[in-house]
Amino acid sequence: MKEFDELWRGGPRFMQTEESFKLSTDSVLLADFANIKRAGRCLDLGSGTGVLSVLLAAKNPISEIVGIEIQPDFAEICRENLAANGMEGRAEIINADLCEHRKLISAESFDLVVSNPPYFAEKSGYSAPAGYRAAAREEKNCTLRDICGAAKWALRWGGMFALVHRPERLSEIFCTMTDAGIEPKRLRMVSYSSDKAPNLVLIEGRRGGKKGLKIEAPLFLTDGYGNDSDEVQRIYKRGAYAPNGEGTEL
Amino acid sequence: MKEFDELWRGGPRFMQTEESFKLSTDSVLLADFANIKRAGRCLDLGSGTGVLSVLLAAKNPISEIVGIEIQPDFAEICRENLAANGMEGRAEIINADLCEHRKLISAESFDLVVSNPPYFAEKSGYSAPAGYRAAAREEKNCTLRDICGAAKWALRWGGMFALVHRPERLSEIFCTMTDAGIEPKRLRMVSYSSDKAPNLVLIEGRRGGKKGLKIEAPLFLTDGYGNDSDEVQRIYKRGAYAPNGEGTEL
Repeated sequence: MKEFDELWRGGPRFMQTEESFKLSTDSVLLADFANIKRAGRCLDLGSGTGVLSVLLAAKNPISEIVGIEIQPDFAEICRENLAANGMEGRAEIINADLCEHRKLISAESFDLVVSNPPYFAEKSGYSAPAGYRAAAREEKNCTLRDICGAAKWALRWGGMFALVHRPERLSEIFCTMTDAGIEPKRLRMVSYSSDKAPNLVLIEGRRGGKKGLKIEAPLFLTDGYGNDSDEVQRIYKRGAYAPNGEGTEL
Repeated sequence: MKEFDELWRGGPRFMQTEESFKLSTDSVLLADFANIKRAGRCLDLGSGTGVLSVLLAAKNPISEIVGIEIQPDFAEICRENLAANGMEGRAEIINADLCEHRKLISAESFDLVVSNPPYFAEKSGYSAPAGYRAAAREEKNCTLRDICGAAKWALRWGGMFALVHRPERLSEIFCTMTDAGIEPKRLRMVSYSSDKAPNLVLIEGRRGGKKGLKIEAPLFLTDGYGNDSDEVQRIYKRGAYAPNGEGTEL
């Protein structure tokens, strides 16, 4: 029998698998950062087991979600996670290679594209073990350029692309997004505490946007004494998603 | 009679002018950020009244400094400031347009290039008043692309380019540096306190460098109670420059 865990009490439920919680913190932070409130249609590039898709669908209970995931097992878990949260009617998971985006989705048909992509360039020296995790963490199946190209194809003019990534890739991300006609508009650094270097970056760009970046106050995961920061408590616990289908703000 | 003020007690001396201290904080922070310790020759693009040049010369007492400054009055004050600190023998200020860099300096002849450039793109809506300040704050005389082009020309392979700028230009700076063959390698955000968005960015790139950015822990100007942070105290007061010519670490 399959078992589901709530991400927090009364919150969205996810199937217990070895993989599904490994990358979830980054997806939870990205779901908080991305603006889905006014996005009718949202595309999740590399949706994995669906943490990000489910959280976004919870944030906006009338949005439609499309996910593209190359791993068949992940795509299936993603569908089950959406169903477990009553979202199957407004979500579609396509088990395919996102590099084939022109065959899979219509051009300029999304208001928001999100991605928690592989973090490490192939052969960069940060290799992960073989198999699932390698595909999810290394750019074996798609590069940053592939992802930005798919986002460009999918987004309507003025639509937003939000992603989470590693700080060391920031310059490359900005250049690749800009080349794809998606102007970086908002950046938020995530670090363990205020005296530490960031270990994640949250980035939002606008298709066809004007130049000019807003760097927000950083997000600290802890208060410096090892306790969850107020903001992490807000993101994880308050106003949790109600499984009856009425999503409220995370 | 001309009067000189010490930037801090026993520290470098600067002529009292209406303009010279207006932009000095940014230059002081850049002087702290830039690695001049191993740089034999350093070029200051848009040296203004010389705050940055003098501080760098103080940090490395055997370095040679070349400054390029388009405003004749500023170039003259810059020379006087260098002389007032006993640095005239190893510094040269060229009163010229840095866009003419190919005529002014030899290619690949510097280990370090620094710049505290105009922050606002011309006609960006952030206009400064006419005259000196306009030239120093707006890109009337040179754009980001001009500055990166001059840095590329001046730097030896592997040499570093360090600049201070406004956060909203960060993406544009990364793209322009990368286009000029200078890979962004180090980034530090500067903000008033840990809960505030940054108001400055310090960036270092390497001519011909490999991809990969290190984002450092942020620099906070205050401790959150309005007092100078420990780091600002370190930058401004401890180990001050000795006017006898023996520079010690800032």
